[in-house]
Amino acid sequence: MARVSQEHLDARRRQILDGAARLFARNGFHATSMQDVLKEVDLSAGAVYRYFSGKDELIAAIVKEVLGEIRAAFEDVSRHSPPPPPDILVGLVLGRTLRVWPSLNSDGEALFPRLMLQVWAETVRNEELAAVLTEVYTELRERWVLAVEAYQKAGMMRSDIPAEHAARTMIAAVQGFIAQQALFGAAPVEVLQDGLRALTSMRDEGTATGGSQLG
Amino acid sequence: MARVSQEHLDARRRQILDGAARLFARNGFHATSMQDVLKEVDLSAGAVYRYFSGKDELIAAIVKEVLGEIRAAFEDVSRHSPPPPPDILVGLVLGRTLRVWPSLNSDGEALFPRLMLQVWAETVRNEELAAVLTEVYTELRERWVLAVEAYQKAGMMRSDIPAEHAARTMIAAVQGFIAQQALFGAAPVEVLQDGLRALTSMRDEGTATGGSQLG
Repeated sequence: MARVSQEHLDARRRQILDGAARLFARNGFHATSMQDVLKEVDLSAGAVYRYFSGKDELIAAIVKEVLGEIRAAFEDVSRHSPPPPPDILVGLVLGRTLRVWPSLNSDGEALFPRLMLQVWAETVRNEELAAVLTEVYTELRERWVLAVEAYQKAGMMRSDIPAEHAARTMIAAVQGFIAQQALFGAAPVEVLQDGLRALTSMRDEGTATGGSQLG
Repeated sequence: MARVSQEHLDARRRQILDGAARLFARNGFHATSMQDVLKEVDLSAGAVYRYFSGKDELIAAIVKEVLGEIRAAFEDVSRHSPPPPPDILVGLVLGRTLRVWPSLNSDGEALFPRLMLQVWAETVRNEELAAVLTEVYTELRERWVLAVEAYQKAGMMRSDIPAEHAARTMIAAVQGFIAQQALFGAAPVEVLQDGLRALTSMRDEGTATGGSQLG
């Protein structure tokens, strides 16, 4: 048997993951067969099964990779102190999330959001994946809570509202925007950033300053 | 053949849709077989196939019903003039969306959000359903744009930001919150309402009033 370099093994594994991810993003996990994956990556069954024992292992590897990317994108949030306002913060996180996995976007179509939807749908019915997703979500929620608490300490945001509720709402806006990208086509991150700026410009009865000064 | 009333036919159809929706919410469309549906609703194949020719027709009926509920929930938005602030508006829409289809929640678990995730995943790979979803989304986005324009006219929100971007952002927050309910368990609508109130209380460099008056 010919000896192959680790580099070669990694590249081959990458090739299989990328091809499978493209198919899963387009057609979902259940409508994609291992036969489809072999055809997409143009490899023999023997070559693919050397890396993954079957579809379940491929799905698990991809879901963990998707969640890893999201975890990394949200980690950026904690690098800024004090955190920038929500529209800038979300731009950093979402911009990076949508840029990852460029091999998924070879045909000009952003497949990452579509893969994300499939991951959500899959985790709902898979306890093992649900546990991984919950762990990542818990971690990123804690990071966003820290950012919100910094807003509150700096007097940028009213502090009589639980920081976790504000954090969950900002995460929800990001998640919903990803869903919109998957369902209705790509849109620039600026759409969500504009929207957050519009919201943070509103007047609220709970603040000290009134709305009467606005034209 | 015994004659049966329209009422009986409707109730039977309802029974099949409810049972199938429960299974689809829990396991997704692809991992649920017609055999599973027959067992869940405790009816013979003959009885079920009298109403639905197969799983595809059941899925289509359920997706259309889910989207109909969402359309109806968002229609409430346009009944208020001028619209209440975002947190109240979202509370009206989301509160109603989560209350619909009570037969899905018989075991105390809110299955509607989980069904919604499955619908999203399914529409990505089904052109016919994608067209229906896009139509409903377009309509509700137009309604939210009207609400945002009313905020802008009333001086409640800065008017130099496209109303559509603010509308998409509010819809994204609702969609993301539904995803969170499906993925991480039920949470009261007040969480999202609090979060929106926290955001709208923030100070933004684009507004006339400064942040210096805040304690």
